[in-house]
Amino acid sequence: MPPFLDRRDLQFQLFEVLDTARLPERPRFAEHSGDFYRDVLATAYAVAERHFANHAREADLHEPRVVGGRVELPPAVAQAMRAYREAGFFSAHHDAELGGLQLPNVVFQAVQAHFQAANVSSASYPFLTIGNANLQRVFASPEQRRYLLPLIEGRWFGTMALSEPQAGSALADITTTAAEQPDGTYHLSGTKLWISGGDHELTENIVHLVLARVRGAPAGVRGISLFLVPKYRLREDGSPGEFNHVVLAGLNHKMGHRGTTNTLLNFGEGGETVGEIVGAPGDGLRQMFHMMNEARIGVGLGAVMSGSAGYQASLAYARERRQGRLPSHKDPLSPPVPLIQHADVRRMLVRQKCFVEGGLALCLYAASLVDDLSTGPAEEREDTALLLGLLTPLAKSWPSRYSQDALSDAIQVLGGAGYTRDHPVEMHYRNNRLNPIHEGTEGIQALDLLGRKLTQAGGRGLAALLARLRADLAASEAFPETAAIRAGVQEAAGHCTWALGEHARRAPERGPDLALANAHAALEMLGHTVVGWQWLRQATAAARALGPERGQGGGRPEEHFHENFYRGKLQAARFFAAHELPKVALQAQLLAGAEASAYDMADEWF
Amino acid sequence: MPPFLDRRDLQFQLFEVLDTARLPERPRFAEHSGDFYRDVLATAYAVAERHFANHAREADLHEPRVVGGRVELPPAVAQAMRAYREAGFFSAHHDAELGGLQLPNVVFQAVQAHFQAANVSSASYPFLTIGNANLQRVFASPEQRRYLLPLIEGRWFGTMALSEPQAGSALADITTTAAEQPDGTYHLSGTKLWISGGDHELTENIVHLVLARVRGAPAGVRGISLFLVPKYRLREDGSPGEFNHVVLAGLNHKMGHRGTTNTLLNFGEGGETVGEIVGAPGDGLRQMFHMMNEARIGVGLGAVMSGSAGYQASLAYARERRQGRLPSHKDPLSPPVPLIQHADVRRMLVRQKCFVEGGLALCLYAASLVDDLSTGPAEEREDTALLLGLLTPLAKSWPSRYSQDALSDAIQVLGGAGYTRDHPVEMHYRNNRLNPIHEGTEGIQALDLLGRKLTQAGGRGLAALLARLRADLAASEAFPETAAIRAGVQEAAGHCTWALGEHARRAPERGPDLALANAHAALEMLGHTVVGWQWLRQATAAARALGPERGQGGGRPEEHFHENFYRGKLQAARFFAAHELPKVALQAQLLAGAEASAYDMADEWF
Repeated sequence: MPPFLDRRDLQFQLFEVLDTARLPERPRFAEHSGDFYRDVLATAYAVAERHFANHAREADLHEPRVVGGRVELPPAVAQAMRAYREAGFFSAHHDAELGGLQLPNVVFQAVQAHFQAANVSSASYPFLTIGNANLQRVFASPEQRRYLLPLIEGRWFGTMALSEPQAGSALADITTTAAEQPDGTYHLSGTKLWISGGDHELTENIVHLVLARVRGAPAGVRGISLFLVPKYRLREDGSPGEFNHVVLAGLNHKMGHRGTTNTLLNFGEGGETVGEIVGAPGDGLRQMFHMMNEARIGVGLGAVMSGSAGYQASLAYARERRQGRLPSHKDPLSPPVPLIQHADVRRMLVRQKCFVEGGLALCLYAASLVDDLSTGPAEEREDTALLLGLLTPLAKSWPSRYSQDALSDAIQVLGGAGYTRDHPVEMHYRNNRLNPIHEGTEGIQALDLLGRKLTQAGGRGLAALLARLRADLAASEAFPETAAIRAGVQEAAGHCTWALGEHARRAPERGPDLALANAHAALEMLGHTVVGWQWLRQATAAARALGPERGQGGGRPEEHFHENFYRGKLQAARFFAAHELPKVALQAQLLAGAEASAYDMADEWF
Repeated sequence: MPPFLDRRDLQFQLFEVLDTARLPERPRFAEHSGDFYRDVLATAYAVAERHFANHAREADLHEPRVVGGRVELPPAVAQAMRAYREAGFFSAHHDAELGGLQLPNVVFQAVQAHFQAANVSSASYPFLTIGNANLQRVFASPEQRRYLLPLIEGRWFGTMALSEPQAGSALADITTTAAEQPDGTYHLSGTKLWISGGDHELTENIVHLVLARVRGAPAGVRGISLFLVPKYRLREDGSPGEFNHVVLAGLNHKMGHRGTTNTLLNFGEGGETVGEIVGAPGDGLRQMFHMMNEARIGVGLGAVMSGSAGYQASLAYARERRQGRLPSHKDPLSPPVPLIQHADVRRMLVRQKCFVEGGLALCLYAASLVDDLSTGPAEEREDTALLLGLLTPLAKSWPSRYSQDALSDAIQVLGGAGYTRDHPVEMHYRNNRLNPIHEGTEGIQALDLLGRKLTQAGGRGLAALLARLRADLAASEAFPETAAIRAGVQEAAGHCTWALGEHARRAPERGPDLALANAHAALEMLGHTVVGWQWLRQATAAARALGPERGQGGGRPEEHFHENFYRGKLQAARFFAAHELPKVALQAQLLAGAEASAYDMADEWF
């Protein structure tokens, strides 16, 4: 079986592009070291390979079923959960006082990446649980720790219950209601849709975090509150007691992510559903969005890892499978060549490499900013927060979209075989197609970027981005091998600056609807530019590692593995500069000019 | 249920953009009329809706199974075959003496489009049968009509058995052998892979057209012959007799097209497989490729129709589903708006319209050239053949690729719902992903285009294309509404001419491998240009139909339906000019400059 991720690349990104090995200089990580992080990643690989990759196809083929009112899953899922729990990954990033290792976010995300690559369906159970626990840790009361601690121990699982049948992306319109009771609890009633992990027998309880309206609350987002709602109410000793009437009303059947139980849940059916409010009434959406950066970077990283698994599978196939001859081979008796020798196959492989490793660099960079927010230099944190806010919609949506293109190439490299269930690429392709939809659709990310993140605090997020980009441009000048990607990034950044300036200058006359009509172009334009910037950073690190003498083609035999790796990085950066960065100009043009052909299209003209 | 295709658009393409109504001026079609063609299309819609669309999801969910050695299909498939047969579509395009209606190819393809849109899995059985019969009609002997006639009557079905496990795209490397017998028949042995319709109980016999090597034949393509191989040998009276030892060795399980039985077949297992040679030894590949234009246009049209079905479904959903508010709506109590009012949703709908209707125009244009080849002015036929040869790889691959983008948008418009099996868009997305693979992969189409079709006969195919394009540019000048698409096409054509000139000039110094390394860029560049040209033709027809007074916004109420239709055409052409045609320049640059970053990437650098 081919690897599901390139471990050499992950090390490169963390320790050669990012300064992860220097995080132990910060007090929170003082007990750590670079080697400790490497050991943690090795454990993640071993657990992911043995307990997650082993049943990825099985989980895809045998969707959860409801049998006798209970959700039935393949037994391998429960074994995977046990292995993940025993490895300590439910708590690794938490404070030591909660039993955690205080793992930096960037390392923890790199850990999670292994499970996303190996089996995204089974990985979703712990991921949702961790997201739920992270939110409780910040906003829930000390008394509510009886819900939190079992999640951190991985004994119970958690969900996020936001969407409703009539309100998917439009959370302002949710109608689930919460009626306050004399004892301060609430009775919830309503229906939630798309709830992953909403019901199963993997744990003895499930803790739902539910958005709902307290009766009489104002319309819109300010009337939304957040509630802790267990599947089984808690007894005095905290153990699960009687059923809380969160009723499984149906399972959703999806194109991919088929191993994840995805549910329609009715609250308050056949009895009372009791919940506890988290924090103050009306704070629900703000609380939910507090974790949004991390959740959205997590989706982007998941997309990268689906792309990575497909890339690795197609690379292995292209090296092994022999078929056809090169245009210069005239003799029909000459042996067929490995697919990788065909120029168009190599194009598809380099393109996958660009999309996967560029996306990985972006997501890990954003993940490292999450660490900087709490442990970086205090005077930089405000800018860091603005930069992170700006990068989040890009880190969420760029890999979601371009991993899909990469996976399409992965299928194409395998040809007819890639279209069958005998190989994993079609499964990754189906799985990843969810990523541009959930946790805020691509359209919502685009509006968030252009309508909020770029204008917040007078555009300081963009200024912070451009300052860092320029510093990296300057640092790359010492390395002539980076010339193409440097020129490409410089030009792309110029297009962005121009188009965003035009957009800002003319937005008042255009009005909000037309001004935001090309938000998608802004997302594409900035997405390609920041990924180009990440390729510049990778190319610089690779050129630095090669050094001047190896840059001349020298190098001792034992160094060839690393030398080849660095040369591949430089070559992929050239490809991105030649094939992808020139696309920025068109998107800039559409944004700056407020291109209106779709905006002006009348409904009845379709 | 939303329609699976836009009937108004199909009429427009056939009768307002193309001159289909004038085909009856040609002797072969003298019995026809425009109204006759419209009646045929109405029948196709009715049969496709009632007997094919009805079980598209059922066929997707219940893959063919082998039960007791026999392939089991949902009963609705057999009913669909009966309806198709009774409507006369197995023979409609054939000569009157064979019981046909002598339907022009362009009309026949439009008929087939209905079935591809309604249910591509079930449509594949008659399509393969028709392709097989078409080939027999040209190359098989009069004695072999006992195989042909049951196919034309739709009583038996046919397959195309080309690929083998070790030779997918590389047909030169097939190893199935045919040993000549004293009676002039051959005994075949070997294994064929990816054979659609390779086994089933829908008909009492199956006629395989098999590529194989006569023992002792030379290596490479010149050693390949074509054989008629029935599942059951024919008795003296032509009826199916004893089993011919074509053994079902397994079914392939695909991401889409799941309703089509796709098989691994062993020839000569457990007994002799007797076949008859078609024509002369060594002619197999030439014969198979004789029908390649039509087969590949058929794949492109199938891709268009998958895209069309997804577009129609997402359009209907976007009009009905209300969610969210516009940026200018500040009141949270204002009612949610239909999705189609969101600018980004409208962008995705117009983009789908561009890809689907642009692809349809290209495929029907190419299909009309097939008619011209046999019934057009004799002095133009050589140029027509060269132009058709040039357009074929584009008509095959452009819709295959861009329908996938359209279908991704269709899913995105529906959001989470689009990702589930409750709606058809995810199925069309899975189905269409096959189209860039089968009947010659995208890479093979690109090599065919750049390495053969553009250089054949001193580039006369390209000259013919540019001459027609320039004539259409000139014709559009009378209509100011076409200005944007006219300018876009003109510029794109200029990029093509420049890049292909550079390519030709520098090919000798580059050598065949590097010169062809950017074949994909050539395919993209010309693909977008010819689809832009097709949008120019549509825009011109729409502007002409609107006329000068309606161009000013007038028009009587009863004409609003058509007026809206034409305005939509003009608007979509503007979108294609603004968002898509500018992409041609980059591809031209890659081709002209022989961009080599992927070409130079060493295997060990990955």
